[in-house]
Amino acid sequence: PPGKKVLIVYAHQEPKSFNGSLKRVAVEELSKQGCSVTVSDLYAMQFEPRATRNDECSLLPTGCLHSSEEFKYHVETWKAYKRGDLSKDVIEEQKKVQEADLLIFQFPLYWFSMPAIMKGWMDRVLVQGFAYDFPDCYDSGLLKNKLALFSFTTGGNEEKFTKESISGDIRYILWPMQHGIMHFCGVKVLAPHICFAPEFVSEEKRKEMVTAWAQRLNTLWKEEPINCSPEWYFK
Amino acid sequence: PPGKKVLIVYAHQEPKSFNGSLKRVAVEELSKQGCSVTVSDLYAMQFEPRATRNDECSLLPTGCLHSSEEFKYHVETWKAYKRGDLSKDVIEEQKKVQEADLLIFQFPLYWFSMPAIMKGWMDRVLVQGFAYDFPDCYDSGLLKNKLALFSFTTGGNEEKFTKESISGDIRYILWPMQHGIMHFCGVKVLAPHICFAPEFVSEEKRKEMVTAWAQRLNTLWKEEPINCSPEWYFK
Repeated sequence: PPGKKVLIVYAHQEPKSFNGSLKRVAVEELSKQGCSVTVSDLYAMQFEPRATRNDECSLLPTGCLHSSEEFKYHVETWKAYKRGDLSKDVIEEQKKVQEADLLIFQFPLYWFSMPAIMKGWMDRVLVQGFAYDFPDCYDSGLLKNKLALFSFTTGGNEEKFTKESISGDIRYILWPMQHGIMHFCGVKVLAPHICFAPEFVSEEKRKEMVTAWAQRLNTLWKEEPINCSPEWYFK
Repeated sequence: PPGKKVLIVYAHQEPKSFNGSLKRVAVEELSKQGCSVTVSDLYAMQFEPRATRNDECSLLPTGCLHSSEEFKYHVETWKAYKRGDLSKDVIEEQKKVQEADLLIFQFPLYWFSMPAIMKGWMDRVLVQGFAYDFPDCYDSGLLKNKLALFSFTTGGNEEKFTKESISGDIRYILWPMQHGIMHFCGVKVLAPHICFAPEFVSEEKRKEMVTAWAQRLNTLWKEEPINCSPEWYFK
């Protein structure tokens, strides 16, 4: 609906890819609804996935660390966040997250998970103090009142990702991403949108998949979040 | 035992860290046994985690792609592997993997998974044709006859990672890494080595944890791999 803000975090190298089409149609559909849409195109931004000393202390002399001489990434970034002293690219992503009502993660599944460039976005952007704190995690996480949706493509077809198959239920894969990251930060999770094996279907079927995504987005704001608990994943 | 080759893939920024100690003691203990040990120290190497066009076509004119004009990372790297044309850093890691009898992954748990820099190692090194192929995956994966062991530290203590706790059984987290990556490539998986919450215990307890790791390595070669199937993870 008009006024809603959406951040699409997108990880594909190729604009002409199927993931690129899903991203494009999401921007179109959500804009048509009157939403304000921002895209973080991670490969185009050459987003830095590595968690290093470069993420903090930019305002302090090089090598200045708060926790004695031993570098602890989580402690340093937590303190740097409080000082407003994280690296510029991280601060910009945090601003986008802060403003968003809905986060959409669009990516091809790499090794039962997200591509490293997107994992790096999670590692670097969702800093303690910003996204969670103690005891402010899970239902009281600092990003509560936001929604997230994981939209991804797979190499294998749907039959490969069932409980009985060797690759197991696709929901097993979603646990670290939906529960371990988003729920941990207080974000409510909408059902994932999974396009199975787009590489191995006809062009017509691919177009149907893109249309189905647009149609889902059309009524997305009426959806209830999933019950993000072990039962949903492993029942 | 003498002659065995071990590759330790290590992801921590700080040599003085607890993860650094675990890595160091593993090198010592395994070397003492007569193993030949190689370490890929990912942060020190500034290992590139992003899966981009830079990974292939180094011998061909820039922009030359095999699958028409649409860049497909998995297809391009598969073909580049066959041509011997992957980027130099990837080829070097593949050589280390090829020679190793045992792969040890040493890292702090970041967001219910490995740090992005290590995920990037998986994404870029375990290329189709090298680590698996179709139908050569799972028990017939191309890295069969190798062993892998995930050794990691957590922020939360052990009680936080039980079936009944909100963070769920620690084994849920291991599914994508042990089964989705290593088992998929045919690698047999030894029981993980988990040090819970080293930050929050005494220096004495931390030393005990390091010693326990060395002791485990002492009899490691007698261990049987786990039964890497859904039952082990979700029973």
